[in-house]
Amino acid sequence: MAIFSDARAEDTRPIKSTTGADISLAARTNALTSPTSGLAPTFLQANLVILPSRYASDFRLLCARNPVPCPLIAESISIGCWSSVTSFIPGLEGAAILSDCDIRRDVSKYIVYKNSKIMKQGCLDILDEWTDDYVALLIGCSFSFESALIVAGLPPRHTALNRNVPIYRTNIPLCPAGVFTGSTYVVSMRSYKASEVEKVREITRPYTATHGEPIAWGWGAVKRLGIEDIDAPTWGEPPLTQDGRPLGEVEGKDHDVPVFWGCGVTPMEAVARSGLEGVVMTHDPGHMLLLDCRDSDIVPAACVA
Amino acid sequence: MAIFSDARAEDTRPIKSTTGADISLAARTNALTSPTSGLAPTFLQANLVILPSRYASDFRLLCARNPVPCPLIAESISIGCWSSVTSFIPGLEGAAILSDCDIRRDVSKYIVYKNSKIMKQGCLDILDEWTDDYVALLIGCSFSFESALIVAGLPPRHTALNRNVPIYRTNIPLCPAGVFTGSTYVVSMRSYKASEVEKVREITRPYTATHGEPIAWGWGAVKRLGIEDIDAPTWGEPPLTQDGRPLGEVEGKDHDVPVFWGCGVTPMEAVARSGLEGVVMTHDPGHMLLLDCRDSDIVPAACVA
Repeated sequence: MAIFSDARAEDTRPIKSTTGADISLAARTNALTSPTSGLAPTFLQANLVILPSRYASDFRLLCARNPVPCPLIAESISIGCWSSVTSFIPGLEGAAILSDCDIRRDVSKYIVYKNSKIMKQGCLDILDEWTDDYVALLIGCSFSFESALIVAGLPPRHTALNRNVPIYRTNIPLCPAGVFTGSTYVVSMRSYKASEVEKVREITRPYTATHGEPIAWGWGAVKRLGIEDIDAPTWGEPPLTQDGRPLGEVEGKDHDVPVFWGCGVTPMEAVARSGLEGVVMTHDPGHMLLLDCRDSDIVPAACVA
Repeated sequence: MAIFSDARAEDTRPIKSTTGADISLAARTNALTSPTSGLAPTFLQANLVILPSRYASDFRLLCARNPVPCPLIAESISIGCWSSVTSFIPGLEGAAILSDCDIRRDVSKYIVYKNSKIMKQGCLDILDEWTDDYVALLIGCSFSFESALIVAGLPPRHTALNRNVPIYRTNIPLCPAGVFTGSTYVVSMRSYKASEVEKVREITRPYTATHGEPIAWGWGAVKRLGIEDIDAPTWGEPPLTQDGRPLGEVEGKDHDVPVFWGCGVTPMEAVARSGLEGVVMTHDPGHMLLLDCRDSDIVPAACVA
C-alpha cells in the first residue's frame, strides 16, 4: 500500500515562517498543496483520522491501549462537528488548540478509503465525503520533538539532507481494540551515533503527546522489529548517513545506528487494515493538520527554537 | 527465574467470603499466608511494586507507555508513605481505595530483590527493608474480570479446575522508559472455544484498569508471541481442557483455542530485568494486595457477582 506521497522532491513550499493558523488557511484556500514538514516552526502538527461515529469508541480504545504509536491528542467536540475539537493534550486539556478551523479543508491533501481500500488520494478537501455522522480524531506527530533535537545539536539526518523521514512497517503487534485487530506498529527512524542515543532518548522522553522516547535502537532492533532492509523503508525516503551513504552500508562500523520511534502512520494502517465498512478519511501522510499550540506548550521546560 | 510460587496445591485459605480490608488485616497479622485468588470476591486485587524514589518517575512512564500489561492504578500518597495511596483508577481518581493500610505487611507474601536478583522470596513482611525513600506502586490484576466471565457463563478453565492461571513470557517488546529497557510482555492465558472469543473480548473490554480485552487469541498467536510450548507456561500451572487434557494436545481440533491477556507480572519482570541497583520489593505473584473498591466500582455497568 503506497500511502506516503513522495512530495519533498519538489520543495515548492510557499510559506516559510508563520503560524499554524496561517498554514491551515493556506490549505483551506488551496494556496498550499505541499507537505507541511518544516512549515510554521514550533507549531504542533497532527495526524488526522476521520471515522463514522460507530467506530469512534473502538478507535479511542485503540489509542488508549497503544499510546506510544497512537497518542490521541484531540477529537471533534461533537459528532459531525468539523469546526472545533476537544484537546486531550496533557496540561492543555480542553484548551483551544484549533480555533477557526474547517477540518474538511484545512489539510493540504487527504486520502479517502472505501471499505478499507484507497478510493482517492491527494484530494484537496473532503467536502463531498463529510456528513453529520463523522468524528475527526487527531494523533500527535513526531515533527515536534525534531525541533528539540535540532536545538540540542542533534538534528535528524533527513532534515539536514532535506529528505523525507524513513518509515517502516514492523511485526510488533498493536494491542487490539474492538474492530481494530491484526495491525502492527509503524515506526519512524532517525540514525545517531551509539554514544548519542541516551541523550536523544532524554530529549524526546517528555514529548508524550508526540510519541515520546524511541521504542528501540541499535542494529539488533532492526531484526527484532521484523524490518527486512533498513535501506528500503515502507514509506518516506531511504536513510543516508551524514556523508550520504546508505545507512545499511555502515552496519557494524563505528558509525550511525538506527533509532526507532512510534509513528502516527500506525493508526492510519490500523484503520486501513481492519476491514472497516463505509468511507473513512485521513490526511495524506506528510500533509499534516497544523494546530495553534506550540512545542513549548506541551513541554514547557524544553528548550525549543 | 521462578517467581511464581506454586501455592494453590494446598488450599488452606482460612477466609472464604469477606472484604478486602479483612484479607489485608489477616495478612498483616500473618493469619493469612496463602494466595488470594478467590478471596473476598468482587474486591479488587492489585500487583505491588515498591521502588526507591529515584526510579518512580521512569516506572510511571513505563506504565503510561504500556498501559495494557502495566495499568498503574495507585501509588503512595507521598515518598515513604506506607499507609495511604492516591488512586488513578478511571472514575475513582483520588478515591479512598485503600484505607487503614500498611503496605509493608498487608500482602501475605513478598519478594525482595537486591541489585535485580531475588534476595528473599515468600517473606511475610518488609518491615526491615522499608525506608522513608520508598514508593509503592499498584498495578491492576485480571482476577477482576474473571468474576465477570463467570457471571456470563464463561468461567476460565483454571478456576473450574481449581488450578493456577498459566502465565507466559513473550517476545513482544515493552516500550522502554528511562532505566526500564529490554523487557517484554508477560501474558496470562485462558482457553475458550473459537466461537466464544468475541463474547470474551466484549466482556473484558471495559476492564481497562485490569488489562482489558485480550491482546491475542488463536493458535497462530502462540507463535506470534514467541511461546514455544503452550503446555509449559513460564509461571502458574499447565493449561488443561474442560475434560482434563493438556491444551496443546487439542491444537487444530474443534476444541479450545488459547486467549492471551496482558499480565501484571510484566512490570515485575521489567523491574527484575532492568538491572536496577539497590533493594526493590514486590508481592509474591498470586499473593495480591486487596483493595476496598469492587469490580462494580470500576465497571459500573458490568454485571458482576
